[in-house]
Amino acid sequence: MKTYLDCLPCFLQQTLRAGRIATDDEKILKQLLDDVGMMLKDIPLDNTPPETGMLIYQKISQITGNKDPYKVIKKENIDNALSLYPEMEKLVDRSNDKLLTAIKLAIAGNVIDFGVNREFDIEKEISETLRNELVLKDYEDFKEALDKAKGILYIGDNAGEAVFDKILIEQLKKPVVYVVRGRPVINDVTFQDAVSAGIDKVARVISSGTPAPGTILKTCNLDFIKLFKSANMVISKGQGNYEGLSGEDRSISFLLKVKCHVIARNIGVKVGDIILRNSR
Amino acid sequence: MKTYLDCLPCFLQQTLRAGRIATDDEKILKQLLDDVGMMLKDIPLDNTPPETGMLIYQKISQITGNKDPYKVIKKENIDNALSLYPEMEKLVDRSNDKLLTAIKLAIAGNVIDFGVNREFDIEKEISETLRNELVLKDYEDFKEALDKAKGILYIGDNAGEAVFDKILIEQLKKPVVYVVRGRPVINDVTFQDAVSAGIDKVARVISSGTPAPGTILKTCNLDFIKLFKSANMVISKGQGNYEGLSGEDRSISFLLKVKCHVIARNIGVKVGDIILRNSR
Repeated sequence: MKTYLDCLPCFLQQTLRAGRIATDDEKILKQLLDDVGMMLKDIPLDNTPPETGMLIYQKISQITGNKDPYKVIKKENIDNALSLYPEMEKLVDRSNDKLLTAIKLAIAGNVIDFGVNREFDIEKEISETLRNELVLKDYEDFKEALDKAKGILYIGDNAGEAVFDKILIEQLKKPVVYVVRGRPVINDVTFQDAVSAGIDKVARVISSGTPAPGTILKTCNLDFIKLFKSANMVISKGQGNYEGLSGEDRSISFLLKVKCHVIARNIGVKVGDIILRNSR
Repeated sequence: MKTYLDCLPCFLQQTLRAGRIATDDEKILKQLLDDVGMMLKDIPLDNTPPETGMLIYQKISQITGNKDPYKVIKKENIDNALSLYPEMEKLVDRSNDKLLTAIKLAIAGNVIDFGVNREFDIEKEISETLRNELVLKDYEDFKEALDKAKGILYIGDNAGEAVFDKILIEQLKKPVVYVVRGRPVINDVTFQDAVSAGIDKVARVISSGTPAPGTILKTCNLDFIKLFKSANMVISKGQGNYEGLSGEDRSISFLLKVKCHVIARNIGVKVGDIILRNSR
């Protein structure tokens, strides 16, 4: 997905939000906003938003000297999600369509996203998401692809969400390779986070190598790119991965909650909608 | 009021919103955002926000070649407000406290503000504002100052709002000098707008000379500054004037609807609150 004009002010907002996680020194934060303001002119609108996200978070690390500002928050999110895990398992077990319930839970976990929203109530999110219908109803196609697939490449998004991904992976009943970021960026899932979330017990965990808050193939390692191209089925979680991968020429099942007007317009849905969309 | 870090991303949002009123050429809008992005580093946090607003709107005029992008919108707002005028007069006439009702109506008009919000429903705003209590209850002080005042300096904010100001001016029962901006900036009230709104029938209209979307004394003409310092009573409408004047060392009655978190925190109230606050 290209960068829209509305993304540019939002980059500044994200800079301030993430910057404040890294430091409370107002002078450093002003310097950070000044620097990102000057970067805008070098951002072509045909870049994907996570390419800019990557530059912003590198700038934050560089200026604040903090390489992983979200470390503590990510741990809290994972612990919080793990405490909900037994209840989520029961919700799936009791439901008429276990796979669909697990898909909805995996999308509910996608709300744990400090890139876009600062505040969320995960338990409220779970109950609302389970009540809501999937807006893009590619579920039948999804099931068909899943039936045929020998294995699945599952691209994770944020760290706490990985616990919710585990619920879905258990329902896929196929070998899964779970993909994490190459290094800490915002609250996105890294190798260590995936292990903390217990993903290693249900999937093989690999790094795409990307330092961006979204999967941009040209920033990924060759092993991942090869897997991405050859996989029978790719599941992509969240907005950042959608933004990075929606232009790629292969079938991908995108699972996400729509959090901003730009994505909503791009997909043709409303903010707040929960989406299962198969590309192609 | 100083500039807060949160104002910086908001400046970019305002740039895009106002830029889109002036042009729909995406390349020009990108250039505009790039230029304002580069300006951020030159904005000290001890500037008031309207000083930056002034630079931004000058940049918009310069890049788009459009000196008054809001001209048509302002006319629509004034015409729309004038169509509501007879009903508003009746609301005042029927009320137990005519002055208080007129104050609330004048604040309701303050929602016509494209600087902060793109969309509003003025009739809904009127009924809600009349139902709401003033959050800062300086009404008794206001009445006392009004009783003592020989004349009032009334600083207008946006163009459509001037029609609502007329309702209040009629209830003040004192000679009023109504102050407009020195030139078109966003949808702020100019001399011509004040006349279109009928203010000249109830007050003497003068220009402060400022090209900013808020009253910043150092950008005003000497006649206005003299009047501002010597006036018995000053009424200031809206956020832009609050931002420009809240640090000045004289008593001012600020009437505004709080539209953003920065102002809400600065004053110690909530977004959406309606305020009558006497400084000193």
